[in-house]
Order: sequence, then structure tokens, then C-alpha cells
Amino acid sequence: MAGIADVAELAGVSKSTASRALSGRGYVSDETQTRVRDAAERLGYVPSTTAVSLATGRTDTVGVIMPAVNRWFFGEVLEGIQTALVERGLDLALYNAKPGTPGRARIFDHYLARQRFDGVIAVGLEPADHEMERLHTIGRPIVTVVGSSPGASAIAIDDLYAARRATEHLLALGHRRIAFVGGAQELHWAHVDKLRLQGYQESMIDAGLEEYIRHIPAVLSLPGGYAASVDFLGDTRRRPTAIVGVCDEVAIGAIIAARRIGVRVPSDLSVVGIDDHEHADMFSLTTLRQSPRAQGYEAVQLLIAQMEDPGAPPRHIAASSRLIVRNSTGPADRESSAIEAGTSLG
Amino acid sequence: MAGIADVAELAGVSKSTASRALSGRGYVSDETQTRVRDAAERLGYVPSTTAVSLATGRTDTVGVIMPAVNRWFFGEVLEGIQTALVERGLDLALYNAKPGTPGRARIFDHYLARQRFDGVIAVGLEPADHEMERLHTIGRPIVTVVGSSPGASAIAIDDLYAARRATEHLLALGHRRIAFVGGAQELHWAHVDKLRLQGYQESMIDAGLEEYIRHIPAVLSLPGGYAASVDFLGDTRRRPTAIVGVCDEVAIGAIIAARRIGVRVPSDLSVVGIDDHEHADMFSLTTLRQSPRAQGYEAVQLLIAQMEDPGAPPRHIAASSRLIVRNSTGPADRESSAIEAGTSLG
Repeated sequence: MAGIADVAELAGVSKSTASRALSGRGYVSDETQTRVRDAAERLGYVPSTTAVSLATGRTDTVGVIMPAVNRWFFGEVLEGIQTALVERGLDLALYNAKPGTPGRARIFDHYLARQRFDGVIAVGLEPADHEMERLHTIGRPIVTVVGSSPGASAIAIDDLYAARRATEHLLALGHRRIAFVGGAQELHWAHVDKLRLQGYQESMIDAGLEEYIRHIPAVLSLPGGYAASVDFLGDTRRRPTAIVGVCDEVAIGAIIAARRIGVRVPSDLSVVGIDDHEHADMFSLTTLRQSPRAQGYEAVQLLIAQMEDPGAPPRHIAASSRLIVRNSTGPADRESSAIEAGTSLG
Repeated sequence: MAGIADVAELAGVSKSTASRALSGRGYVSDETQTRVRDAAERLGYVPSTTAVSLATGRTDTVGVIMPAVNRWFFGEVLEGIQTALVERGLDLALYNAKPGTPGRARIFDHYLARQRFDGVIAVGLEPADHEMERLHTIGRPIVTVVGSSPGASAIAIDDLYAARRATEHLLALGHRRIAFVGGAQELHWAHVDKLRLQGYQESMIDAGLEEYIRHIPAVLSLPGGYAASVDFLGDTRRRPTAIVGVCDEVAIGAIIAARRIGVRVPSDLSVVGIDDHEHADMFSLTTLRQSPRAQGYEAVQLLIAQMEDPGAPPRHIAASSRLIVRNSTGPADRESSAIEAGTSLG
């Protein structure tokens, strides 16, 4: 494989001039630059990025830290990030920082200090204070996707709004006995999920339905939603007429449970989720649509803007979420609503 | 942050000696090495990996190339790889080479030539010949997970066997009208899926049931299996009594479709898959269990063995797959089998 010396010889310049011409740093005349680049192309020369990196201080790599890759949301964000990075010719270094693992500690204590990236995208990370400190001491631009961090640009949907919108859709259909399903059973009850619960609670209070507020814990996965729903659907006396799932995976789990038990969706139970997961359409799930892939793509643009102009103030972008009405939600049954009203009054 | 000069000064040695002591390359006395390491630790010195890399030719990074990250199998493999790399203190550079995209072409034509890794793990890549050539010219060890490549170590389950085992489970239950669902509708009808179809076909032929062989195309996803199954389950005259899904996602899609249409599983339709997907248990799916996470973990061990001893012959490891019987499969209904026999003879 051709080296920089070969390129320099063919172009008739010194090695250091060839190096400057190819890296685009330092002064080289246009004519020389053209000659060196032509030589490099003819020889199929690919610069040793290690040497380039030492000279420029750049790694042309973006670090991505996320707590999981095998969940729909994170996989989609990663796809979006990857697409944007390939367009820009940048490498991706992946750090999988699952909460509470020795691996996470090693990433924060050791890997980040190696500084093998020009910037970091932190996805759903919710770092502890000491982790956040570590992140900032590396002195590289940071962008967060879900979650936020002082001094970092951020992109995320408005989770409080999304949960309010989901709840209000059910309220408009005449439901009152509305429960919120998901969260609180896992080790890490994430901030984003708390915001969604809060949005639901606020909407219920605003509608004068505080007494109907009910939070049903569930692990944040399809089987988690299924397991929790088998339980609460079986209790016919207390069964809600509608539920807000903390995310589509939990909502879909509830629909699968309802079908198994013989509870009809939406006539016996309306279900709304948040995400527009790839399986939402198959289950006719009404949901608040967001695009984690677009958020990942956009995060790269934010990061590059910060790398190009480190002095610019961080930007916070609200990703869109909008209600997609499918067939998992319908009008509340007047009769059962009446019974409920009686029950609650009695 | 402390630099190598600070470490050298504190240890009372030259910069080059300090550098050798910390990289572990070149001769340094034990006593000096201890002194330099102590100094580095006291100063909280983290070596610039760029400089270390230039000196040693090592990047301490493993490249991972896969066609998708947002599918269960690939997400699990990536989790396994990541766990193993963090244990070893190695970085992960991710290349998402989706077939037929400009990004894939750029990865093979440009990114790989940069050689920013000491070795490569290619997951389900099925490279074209010219891509394979590119991979080999980079002169780094390669390990494949699913698929194979001359000169590379490999790990994968025996797909032919897995499909045979799945089919034979249904044959043993008395089924004859057994169809194979999945594949052939996507752009890239992967080699692994062709092997599974072939395993099914061989078992049917061995059982003297060649006339019952039926391949129902389906996109390889849960919605894909659902859509295909709604079609074939609706055709009551030709409906099989059992199906082998090319993977669990397709098999689960078929179960969901059956429940919607009112086809009882397993009394009207037995369903078996391959994978033991995270949702398999929730759908009581009988399946051939494999662990992509363990395969990813093992791939790293294979790669490190090759990096440590480049002269060693490549190893091929057959990952385990075993039948897990749940409630989606049951004995063939004698009556309907008789009717089918009549139909097929008529």
C-alpha cells in the first residue's frame, strides 16, 4: 500500500508538504495541493488516520453512549446517528453503558478519558452527578438525546406534553376510569417515564378526575406490559375503561393480554401508547408518534455545529410528537361509565 | 491534565523511557516500569491513545460491521460483543452496512481502508465478492457471526439442522401438511434463510411428504409474518395444520394473525420458530433456541485469539441450538389430517 513518501515523491514535494496538502492544515499553494491530491489518488493512498490524528488533534470519530442497543428506541436512534455519520465521513465509537454494571463504571472512569472522539452523543443516559462531571472534564462537545445536561445541546420530545395529549384523547372520548401503565418496577425509573406519568396525572387533575388516578407498575417492555395487564384486566370490578401506556411496547403488551383474556379493544378497553413503535400499526395502536431515527440524525447535526463553533451556545430542540388515531381507542361505554360513577360515589 | 512529560519528570526518566514503560513495548527494567507506572497513577495520567497507537501500530479497537442494529438478533449480538470488549478494555467502532445503500459502499470503499481497528467482526454480512476482497486486503483478523469467509474464524448455529429439528418435531406430532413461512420477498434473501428452507425441505422429503412441501413468502419481521399469515390462514381449504417460521419474529406474527382470525393455536395450527426471541415465551412459542448474545461474546474471544497468534488456523464454532417445546405445537387433528389426505389424493 502506498505511503505518504510515495505520494510526496510522485508529486515532487517534501513529505511534510504532502502531509499538509492532504490534511488541509497549514499553508500549501493551490497548485501544490492539486498535484499532491492527484498523486494520492493515482496511488490509491489512504492516510494513516493515526498520524493525521496526531497532527490535527482530530479523531474524526463521534462517541455514542447509550444504556442498551437491543431496545427499539435505542436501535432506531443508533440507525439515525449512523446514517448521518456515514454521510459526513465520521466514525462511530459505541459505548454501551448499562446502568448498574461494572462496564458502565469502566466506561466513565476509563474509556472516556482516552478521548478517542471529537464529540459525544449521550442517548437516554441519565448520568449520575459524578458521571456528568467526567463527561464534562473530557472537554468535548456533548449532545443528549432524551435527557439533558448543562452546557450540552439536546434533542427530545416533550414527554409531559405527549402524555397529556394521550390522556386528553381518552378524556375526549368520554373515559374517566383511565389508568397509567408502566414504570416503577425497574431498578431505574427513568426521568422521561416520570414526566409521562406526571403529564397523565396533570390531565386527570385538570379534568377533575383526581380520584380516578391510578398507576399500574409494569416493566418497560412488551412482556412487561403483558404481565401487568393480565393482572389488572382480570380484576373486573376495578378494571379501567382506558389506559395510557408509558410507551408502545407496554401498550402493545396490554392489547395482547386483552385479546387473550377476551377483553375487547376498544369496546371494553381503549389503549393509547407513546412512540409509534414499528409494531404499532399491526396492533392498530393509537399513539403519540415520535421518530427516534430522526432524533439520532439531528443529534449529529447539533454535534457538528458545536464542533465547528465551540463558542456557540448549546441548542435545545423539541422533537415532534403527534397523535396518530388508530382502532385501539373508542368512545367510553355509557353504561359502564355510569356504573363506574356509581361505584366511585358509593 | 498531566502529560507524558510530567510523568517522566516525576519518575526521573526520559520521555521516551516513560512512554516505553507505559506502552509495555521495548526494554525497560522492572524497577523503572514500576516507578513510571506509580508516577502515572499519582498524576492521573491517561495516555493519548493516538500517540500510543502510532508507536505500537495498535488501535485497541475492534470494528463491527452489521447490516442493521435495530433488529433483535443484531442488537443481541452487539450486546454480547460490547460486554466482551469492555472486559478487555477495547473500543468498538460500529459500521452499519445496510445492503444496497450508498453507506454500505462507502464503508467498504473508504472506512475499512482507514484501518482504525485491530480486527473485524462481521455479523450476518454476506459480502459480495468485491466486498470480501476489500475486507481481506486490510490485512486484519476477521471473525464472522452468521455467514462465513475463507480465512476467517466463524461462529453460527447449524441452520440446516435447526430447521430439520423444527420440522421433525411437527412430523413426530403427526403433521403432514406443514408449510414453511418466511423469506424470498426481500431484496436480500439471505443464505442463512435459504439453509433453513432447505432443512425443512429435506425433512419433508425424508418423511415421504414431498407433495406437501409449501413455501409461503414473508418479510422477515413480526408484521411480515402477520401479513403473510392473514392471507394463508384465510384460505381454509388449503390451510396447513402446522408451520415452521424461518425465525421467531415470523412465527410470532403468525400466532398473532391466528388469534385475530380465530384459528386456535395449537389445536387448529401448530407453530414452531427458530431463535427463542425475547417475546417467544410470552406467545408460548415452541422454538429452536439460540443465543446471539453468547455468539457475540464468543466472537470477541475468537478474534483476540487470532490477533494474539496471527499464524493460527481460523476456527469454526458451531453455536448450540436446541428445541424448546412450549404450547404453540400439539398433535395433528386426526380428522383434518384424513380430510387433507383425501384432498391431496383427489
